[in-house]
Amino acid sequence: MTTLFISPGACSLASHIAVLELGLPIQIEKVALRTPDSPIHAINPLGRVPALQLDDGTLITENSAILPYLADQVPGTPLFAPAGSAERAQIQSWLGYLAAEVHAASFRPLNRPERYSADAAAHPGIRAQAQVQLLQAFQHIERHLQERQWLVGERFTLADAYLGIFTTWLLRIGGPFAELQAIARLREQWRARPAVQQALQAEGLL
Amino acid sequence: MTTLFISPGACSLASHIAVLELGLPIQIEKVALRTPDSPIHAINPLGRVPALQLDDGTLITENSAILPYLADQVPGTPLFAPAGSAERAQIQSWLGYLAAEVHAASFRPLNRPERYSADAAAHPGIRAQAQVQLLQAFQHIERHLQERQWLVGERFTLADAYLGIFTTWLLRIGGPFAELQAIARLREQWRARPAVQQALQAEGLL
Repeated sequence: MTTLFISPGACSLASHIAVLELGLPIQIEKVALRTPDSPIHAINPLGRVPALQLDDGTLITENSAILPYLADQVPGTPLFAPAGSAERAQIQSWLGYLAAEVHAASFRPLNRPERYSADAAAHPGIRAQAQVQLLQAFQHIERHLQERQWLVGERFTLADAYLGIFTTWLLRIGGPFAELQAIARLREQWRARPAVQQALQAEGLL
Repeated sequence: MTTLFISPGACSLASHIAVLELGLPIQIEKVALRTPDSPIHAINPLGRVPALQLDDGTLITENSAILPYLADQVPGTPLFAPAGSAERAQIQSWLGYLAAEVHAASFRPLNRPERYSADAAAHPGIRAQAQVQLLQAFQHIERHLQERQWLVGERFTLADAYLGIFTTWLLRIGGPFAELQAIARLREQWRARPAVQQALQAEGLL
Protein backbone atom coordinates (compact mmCIF):
# COMPACT_ATOMS: atom_id res chain seq x y z
CA MET A 1 0.00 0.00 0.00
CA THR A 2 1.18 3.51 -0.73
CA THR A 3 2.45 5.11 2.48
CA LEU A 4 3.04 8.75 3.37
CA PHE A 5 5.66 9.23 6.08
CA ILE A 6 5.09 12.32 8.19
CA SER A 7 6.26 13.83 11.46
CA PRO A 8 3.67 15.64 13.60
CA GLY A 9 3.84 19.40 13.12
CA ALA A 10 6.46 19.25 10.35
CA CYS A 11 5.84 20.55 6.82
CA SER A 12 4.67 17.03 5.91
CA LEU A 13 1.30 18.22 7.22
CA ALA A 14 0.71 19.69 3.73
CA SER A 15 0.87 16.28 2.07
CA HIS A 16 -1.19 14.77 4.90
CA ILE A 17 -3.92 17.36 4.30
CA ALA A 18 -3.85 16.70 0.54
CA VAL A 19 -4.34 12.96 1.08
CA LEU A 20 -7.45 13.70 3.16
CA GLU A 21 -8.79 16.45 0.85
CA LEU A 22 -8.46 14.06 -2.11
CA GLY A 23 -9.79 11.00 -0.26
CA LEU A 24 -6.87 8.85 -1.38
CA PRO A 25 -6.35 5.32 0.03
CA ILE A 26 -2.88 6.13 1.39
CA GLN A 27 -1.56 4.99 4.76
CA ILE A 28 -0.20 7.76 7.01
CA GLU A 29 2.80 6.70 9.09
CA LYS A 30 4.30 8.91 11.80
CA VAL A 31 8.07 8.86 12.27
CA ALA A 32 10.51 10.72 14.49
CA LEU A 33 12.99 13.13 12.91
CA ARG A 34 16.63 13.79 13.78
CA THR A 35 16.96 10.58 15.79
CA PRO A 36 19.44 8.01 14.42
CA ASP A 37 17.14 5.04 15.01
CA SER A 38 14.06 6.51 13.29
CA PRO A 39 12.57 4.18 10.64
CA ILE A 40 12.65 7.14 8.20
CA HIS A 41 16.37 6.51 7.51
CA ALA A 42 15.56 3.13 5.95
CA ILE A 43 12.96 4.80 3.70
CA ASN A 44 14.58 8.14 2.79
CA PRO A 45 18.40 8.40 2.89
CA LEU A 46 18.00 12.13 3.64
CA GLY A 47 16.05 11.27 6.81
CA ARG A 48 13.36 13.79 5.91
CA VAL A 49 9.59 14.01 5.63
CA PRO A 50 7.30 14.10 3.77
CA ALA A 51 8.29 10.91 1.97
CA LEU A 52 5.77 9.03 -0.18
CA GLN A 53 6.51 5.36 -0.81
CA LEU A 54 4.50 3.89 -3.67
CA ASP A 55 3.32 0.25 -3.87
CA ASP A 56 6.37 -0.75 -5.92
CA GLY A 57 8.79 0.87 -3.47
CA THR A 58 9.38 4.04 -5.53
CA LEU A 59 10.13 6.96 -3.24
CA ILE A 60 8.87 10.51 -3.87
CA THR A 61 10.19 13.34 -1.68
CA GLU A 62 9.60 17.12 -1.45
CA ASN A 63 6.13 18.64 -0.88
CA SER A 64 6.53 20.47 -4.22
CA ALA A 65 6.50 17.05 -5.96
CA ILE A 66 4.31 14.95 -3.64
CA LEU A 67 1.40 17.44 -3.66
CA PRO A 68 1.13 17.56 -7.50
CA TYR A 69 1.50 13.76 -7.67
CA LEU A 70 -1.32 13.25 -5.17
CA ALA A 71 -3.64 15.70 -6.96
CA ASP A 72 -2.91 14.07 -10.33
CA GLN A 73 -4.33 10.80 -8.96
CA VAL A 74 -7.73 12.58 -9.02
CA PRO A 75 -7.93 14.19 -12.49
CA GLY A 76 -10.11 17.28 -12.47
CA THR A 77 -9.73 17.97 -8.75
CA PRO A 78 -10.14 21.68 -7.91
CA LEU A 79 -6.99 21.43 -5.78
CA PHE A 80 -4.86 21.61 -8.95
CA ALA A 81 -5.28 22.35 -12.68
CA PRO A 82 -4.64 20.59 -16.02
CA ALA A 83 -1.09 19.99 -17.27
CA GLY A 84 0.01 22.85 -19.53
CA SER A 85 -2.35 25.44 -18.02
CA ALA A 86 -1.13 28.75 -16.63
CA GLU A 87 -3.13 28.10 -13.48
CA ARG A 88 -1.26 24.88 -12.80
CA ALA A 89 2.04 26.72 -13.29
CA GLN A 90 0.95 29.40 -10.80
CA ILE A 91 0.05 26.78 -8.20
CA GLN A 92 3.38 25.01 -8.81
CA SER A 93 5.16 28.38 -8.55
CA TRP A 94 3.71 28.99 -5.07
CA LEU A 95 4.74 25.49 -4.00
CA GLY A 96 8.28 26.32 -5.11
CA TYR A 97 8.27 29.73 -3.44
CA LEU A 98 7.01 28.29 -0.16
CA ALA A 99 9.55 25.44 -0.19
CA ALA A 100 12.59 27.53 -1.20
CA GLU A 101 11.99 31.08 0.07
CA VAL A 102 9.71 30.58 3.04
CA HIS A 103 10.86 27.23 4.43
CA ALA A 104 14.49 26.66 3.34
CA ALA A 105 15.66 30.29 3.15
CA SER A 106 13.73 31.81 6.08
CA PHE A 107 12.27 29.39 8.63
CA ARG A 108 15.31 27.11 8.58
CA PRO A 109 17.94 29.71 9.60
CA LEU A 110 15.41 31.01 12.17
CA ASN A 111 14.86 27.58 13.73
CA ARG A 112 18.20 25.92 13.02
CA PRO A 113 20.95 28.56 12.87
CA GLU A 114 23.54 25.83 13.53
CA ARG A 115 23.05 24.77 9.91
CA TYR A 116 24.27 28.22 8.83
CA SER A 117 27.30 28.68 11.06
CA ALA A 118 29.34 26.44 13.35
CA ASP A 119 30.03 29.51 15.53
CA ALA A 120 27.35 29.73 18.24
CA ALA A 121 28.13 33.42 18.74
CA ALA A 122 26.80 34.07 15.22
CA HIS A 123 23.43 32.40 15.87
CA PRO A 124 21.54 35.37 17.34
CA GLY A 125 22.50 37.48 14.29
CA ILE A 126 21.44 34.69 11.92
CA ARG A 127 18.08 34.32 13.67
CA ALA A 128 17.50 38.09 13.57
CA GLN A 129 18.28 38.28 9.84
CA ALA A 130 16.09 35.22 9.17
CA GLN A 131 13.15 37.13 10.68
CA VAL A 132 13.85 39.99 8.26
CA GLN A 133 13.84 37.57 5.30
CA LEU A 134 10.75 35.81 6.60
CA LEU A 135 8.86 39.07 6.96
CA GLN A 136 9.76 40.11 3.40
CA ALA A 137 8.63 36.72 2.09
CA PHE A 138 5.29 37.00 3.95
CA GLN A 139 4.76 40.65 2.97
CA HIS A 140 4.94 39.50 -0.66
CA ILE A 141 2.23 36.92 0.06
CA GLU A 142 0.19 39.47 2.06
CA ARG A 143 0.20 41.88 -0.92
CA HIS A 144 -0.84 39.06 -3.26
CA LEU A 145 -3.78 38.17 -0.97
CA GLN A 146 -5.09 41.74 -0.69
CA GLU A 147 -7.81 41.14 -3.26
CA ARG A 148 -7.93 37.38 -3.18
CA GLN A 149 -9.33 34.80 -0.80
CA TRP A 150 -6.84 32.08 -1.83
CA LEU A 151 -3.46 32.13 -3.62
CA VAL A 152 -4.66 31.00 -7.06
CA GLY A 153 -7.98 30.86 -8.90
CA GLU A 154 -10.31 31.94 -6.04
CA ARG A 155 -10.49 28.43 -4.61
CA PHE A 156 -8.52 26.33 -2.12
CA THR A 157 -5.64 24.62 -3.94
CA LEU A 158 -2.47 22.70 -3.10
CA ALA A 159 -0.74 26.05 -2.67
CA ASP A 160 -3.08 27.03 0.18
CA ALA A 161 -2.82 23.60 1.82
CA TYR A 162 0.93 24.23 2.05
CA LEU A 163 0.80 27.96 2.93
CA GLY A 164 -1.60 27.31 5.80
CA ILE A 165 1.07 25.42 7.76
CA PHE A 166 3.56 28.25 7.58
CA THR A 167 0.91 30.76 8.68
CA THR A 168 0.50 28.73 11.89
CA TRP A 169 4.26 28.73 12.47
CA LEU A 170 4.11 32.55 12.49
CA LEU A 171 1.98 32.45 15.64
CA ARG A 172 5.07 31.41 17.63
CA ILE A 173 6.86 34.58 16.50
CA GLY A 174 4.21 37.29 16.79
CA GLY A 175 5.51 40.86 16.47
CA PRO A 176 5.09 42.30 12.96
CA PHE A 177 3.77 38.95 11.73
CA ALA A 178 0.61 39.44 13.82
CA GLU A 179 -0.19 42.52 11.71
CA LEU A 180 -0.53 40.59 8.43
CA GLN A 181 -4.32 40.69 8.08
CA ALA A 182 -4.70 38.71 4.85
CA ILE A 183 -2.41 36.01 6.22
CA ALA A 184 -4.53 35.81 9.39
CA ARG A 185 -7.69 35.51 7.31
CA LEU A 186 -6.24 32.72 5.18
CA ARG A 187 -5.10 30.86 8.30
CA GLU A 188 -8.66 30.84 9.67
CA GLN A 189 -10.16 29.72 6.34
CA TRP A 190 -7.53 26.98 6.14
CA ARG A 191 -8.20 25.83 9.72
CA ALA A 192 -11.95 25.68 9.04
CA ARG A 193 -11.60 22.98 6.38
CA PRO A 194 -12.67 19.51 7.60
CA ALA A 195 -9.58 17.84 6.06
CA VAL A 196 -7.29 20.30 7.85
CA GLN A 197 -9.09 19.67 11.15
CA GLN A 198 -8.81 15.93 10.62
CA ALA A 199 -5.08 16.12 9.82
CA LEU A 200 -4.36 18.41 12.79
CA GLN A 201 -6.20 16.03 15.08
CA ALA A 202 -4.42 12.95 13.68
CA GLU A 203 -1.06 14.66 14.27
CA GLY A 204 -2.01 15.66 17.84
CA LEU A 205 -1.95 19.37 17.03
CA LEU A 206 -5.42 20.29 18.31
CA MET B 1 4.59 37.02 -27.51
CA THR B 2 5.58 34.91 -24.53
CA THR B 3 8.84 36.20 -23.06
CA LEU B 4 11.35 34.56 -20.75
CA PHE B 5 13.35 37.04 -18.69
CA ILE B 6 16.83 35.82 -17.81
CA SER B 7 20.10 37.15 -16.47
CA PRO B 8 23.32 35.75 -17.98
CA GLY B 9 24.85 33.09 -15.77
CA ALA B 10 21.96 33.05 -13.26
CA CYS B 11 19.81 29.98 -12.59
CA SER B 12 17.44 31.24 -15.31
CA LEU B 13 19.80 29.39 -17.67
CA ALA B 14 17.77 26.25 -16.89
CA SER B 15 14.58 27.71 -18.34
CA HIS B 16 16.55 29.17 -21.26
CA ILE B 17 17.92 25.70 -22.08
CA ALA B 18 14.44 24.17 -21.83
CA VAL B 19 13.03 26.71 -24.32
CA LEU B 20 15.74 25.70 -26.81
CA GLU B 21 15.49 21.95 -26.13
CA LEU B 22 11.73 22.13 -26.72
CA GLY B 23 11.95 24.45 -29.72
CA LEU B 24 9.33 26.82 -28.29
CA PRO B 25 8.58 30.20 -29.92
CA ILE B 26 9.47 32.19 -26.80
CA GLN B 27 11.43 35.44 -26.80
CA ILE B 28 14.48 35.50 -24.50
CA GLU B 29 15.11 38.87 -22.86
CA LYS B 30 18.22 39.60 -20.81
CA VAL B 31 17.85 41.83 -17.75
CA ALA B 32 20.20 43.05 -15.03
CA LEU B 33 19.67 41.89 -11.45
CA ARG B 34 20.03 43.79 -8.19
CA THR B 35 19.98 47.20 -9.91
CA PRO B 36 17.02 49.46 -9.04
CA ASP B 37 16.43 50.57 -12.65
CA SER B 38 16.35 47.07 -14.17
CA PRO B 39 13.20 46.42 -16.26
CA ILE B 40 12.68 43.21 -14.28
CA HIS B 41 11.08 45.19 -11.43
CA ALA B 42 8.19 46.17 -13.69
CA ILE B 43 7.68 42.51 -14.63
CA ASN B 44 8.34 40.66 -11.38
CA PRO B 45 7.84 42.49 -8.05
CA LEU B 46 10.46 40.19 -6.51
CA GLY B 47 13.02 41.44 -9.06
CA ARG B 48 14.10 37.89 -9.82
CA VAL B 49 14.72 35.65 -12.80
CA PRO B 50 13.63 33.42 -14.39
CA ALA B 51 10.29 35.10 -15.02
CA LEU B 52 8.01 33.90 -17.80
CA GLN B 53 5.44 36.38 -19.08
CA LEU B 54 2.66 34.80 -21.13
CA ASP B 55 0.85 36.49 -24.03
CA ASP B 56 -1.97 37.65 -21.75
CA GLY B 57 0.46 39.13 -19.21
CA THR B 58 0.26 36.24 -16.73
CA LEU B 59 3.55 35.90 -14.87
CA ILE B 60 5.11 32.54 -13.92
CA THR B 61 8.14 32.48 -11.62
CA GLU B 62 10.40 29.77 -10.12
CA ASN B 63 12.33 27.29 -12.26
CA SER B 64 10.43 24.50 -10.50
CA ALA B 65 7.20 25.82 -12.10
CA ILE B 66 8.48 27.32 -15.38
CA LEU B 67 10.30 24.16 -16.46
CA PRO B 68 7.21 21.89 -16.09
CA TYR B 69 5.03 24.52 -17.78
CA LEU B 70 7.39 24.74 -20.77
CA ALA B 71 7.62 20.95 -21.14
CA ASP B 72 3.82 20.61 -20.93
CA GLN B 73 3.53 22.78 -24.06
CA VAL B 74 5.06 19.80 -25.93
CA PRO B 75 3.05 16.77 -24.74
CA GLY B 76 5.09 13.57 -24.91
CA THR B 77 8.48 15.32 -24.73
CA PRO B 78 11.17 13.06 -23.23
CA LEU B 79 12.21 16.00 -21.03
CA PHE B 80 9.25 15.29 -18.72
CA ALA B 81 6.61 12.59 -18.14
CA PRO B 82 2.79 12.32 -18.08
CA ALA B 83 0.76 13.88 -15.26
CA GLY B 84 0.15 11.34 -12.50
CA SER B 85 3.21 9.19 -13.31
CA ALA B 86 5.85 8.36 -10.70
CA GLU B 87 8.52 9.44 -13.17
CA ARG B 88 7.05 12.92 -13.43
CA ALA B 89 6.96 13.14 -9.62
CA GLN B 90 10.63 12.12 -9.45
CA ILE B 91 11.62 14.81 -11.97
CA GLN B 92 9.56 17.38 -10.03
CA SER B 93 11.20 16.19 -6.80
CA TRP B 94 14.69 16.87 -8.17
CA LEU B 95 13.56 20.33 -9.34
CA GLY B 96 12.39 21.01 -5.79
CA TYR B 97 15.56 19.63 -4.21
CA LEU B 98 17.79 21.69 -6.50
CA ALA B 99 15.80 24.88 -5.90
CA ALA B 100 15.47 24.53 -2.11
CA GLU B 101 18.46 22.52 -0.87
CA VAL B 102 21.13 23.26 -3.48
CA HIS B 103 20.31 26.83 -4.52
CA ALA B 104 18.43 28.52 -1.63
CA ALA B 105 19.93 26.58 1.31
CA SER B 106 23.54 26.14 0.11
CA PHE B 107 24.68 28.35 -2.78
CA ARG B 108 22.87 31.43 -1.45
CA PRO B 109 24.58 31.60 1.98
CA LEU B 110 27.87 30.80 0.22
CA ASN B 111 27.50 33.64 -2.28
CA ARG B 112 25.39 36.11 -0.28
CA PRO B 113 26.11 35.68 3.44
CA GLU B 114 24.75 39.20 4.03
CA ARG B 115 21.29 37.71 3.56
CA TYR B 116 21.94 35.45 6.58
CA SER B 117 23.47 37.93 9.03
CA ALA B 118 23.84 41.70 9.21
CA ASP B 119 27.10 41.17 11.14
CA ALA B 120 29.99 41.06 8.64
CA ALA B 121 32.18 39.28 11.18
CA ALA B 122 29.82 36.27 10.92
CA HIS B 123 30.13 35.98 7.12
CA PRO B 124 33.27 33.81 6.92
CA GLY B 125 31.64 31.27 9.27
CA ILE B 126 28.41 31.33 7.24
CA ARG B 127 30.31 30.75 4.00
CA ALA B 128 32.30 27.89 5.54
CA GLN B 129 29.14 26.18 6.82
CA ALA B 130 27.42 26.73 3.44
CA GLN B 131 30.22 24.75 1.81
CA VAL B 132 29.57 21.91 4.26
CA GLN B 133 25.84 21.93 3.39
CA LEU B 134 26.60 22.19 -0.33
CA LEU B 135 28.97 19.24 -0.20
CA GLN B 136 26.35 17.12 1.60
CA ALA B 137 23.73 18.09 -0.98
CA PHE B 138 26.04 17.16 -3.86
CA GLN B 139 27.23 13.94 -2.21
CA HIS B 140 23.57 12.86 -2.17
CA ILE B 141 23.36 13.56 -5.91
CA GLU B 142 26.74 11.87 -6.53
CA ARG B 143 25.50 8.68 -4.82
CA HIS B 144 22.28 8.76 -6.85
CA LEU B 145 24.28 9.06 -10.11
CA GLN B 146 26.63 6.15 -9.34
CA GLU B 147 24.71 3.75 -11.56
CA ARG B 148 22.83 6.26 -13.66
CA GLN B 149 23.75 8.54 -16.55
CA TRP B 150 21.01 11.08 -15.77
CA LEU B 151 18.90 11.85 -12.69
CA VAL B 152 15.66 10.14 -13.80
CA GLY B 153 14.70 7.53 -16.39
CA GLU B 154 18.07 7.13 -18.16
CA ARG B 155 17.47 10.14 -20.37
CA PHE B 156 18.09 13.89 -20.21
CA THR B 157 15.14 15.57 -18.47
CA LEU B 158 14.24 18.94 -16.98
CA ALA B 159 16.01 17.82 -13.79
CA ASP B 160 19.34 17.48 -15.63
CA ALA B 161 18.88 20.78 -17.48
CA TYR B 162 18.68 22.43 -14.05
CA LEU B 163 21.36 20.35 -12.28
CA GLY B 164 23.89 21.08 -15.05
CA ILE B 165 24.03 24.76 -14.10
CA PHE B 166 24.87 24.06 -10.48
CA THR B 167 27.60 21.60 -11.51
CA THR B 168 29.31 24.45 -13.40
CA TRP B 169 29.06 26.71 -10.33
CA LEU B 170 31.08 24.07 -8.41
CA LEU B 171 34.07 24.72 -10.69
CA ARG B 172 34.62 28.07 -8.96
CA ILE B 173 34.97 26.30 -5.61
CA GLY B 174 37.10 23.26 -6.44
CA GLY B 175 38.45 21.39 -3.39
CA PRO B 176 36.34 18.34 -2.46
CA PHE B 177 33.83 19.22 -5.19
CA ALA B 178 36.44 18.38 -7.85
CA GLU B 179 36.44 14.79 -6.59
CA LEU B 180 32.77 14.14 -7.43
CA GLN B 181 33.25 11.93 -10.48
CA ALA B 182 29.61 11.33 -11.42
CA ILE B 183 28.89 15.05 -11.13
CA ALA B 184 31.85 15.79 -13.46
CA ARG B 185 30.56 13.22 -15.97
CA LEU B 186 27.05 14.71 -15.93
CA ARG B 187 28.49 18.20 -16.42
CA GLU B 188 30.29 17.09 -19.59
CA GLN B 189 27.21 15.31 -20.95
CA TRP B 190 25.13 18.39 -20.22
CA ARG B 191 27.64 20.72 -21.90
CA ALA B 192 27.73 18.51 -25.00
CA ARG B 193 24.05 19.07 -25.77
CA PRO B 194 23.44 21.49 -28.68
CA ALA B 195 20.73 23.40 -26.79
CA VAL B 196 23.06 23.90 -23.82
CA GLN B 197 25.83 25.13 -26.10
CA GLN B 198 23.40 27.50 -27.79
CA ALA B 199 22.10 28.88 -24.48
CA LEU B 200 25.62 29.30 -23.05
CA GLN B 201 26.66 31.17 -26.22
CA ALA B 202 23.56 33.40 -26.17
CA GLU B 203 24.29 34.31 -22.53
CA GLY B 204 27.97 35.05 -23.31
CA LEU B 205 29.20 32.17 -21.15
CA LEU B 206 31.41 30.43 -23.74
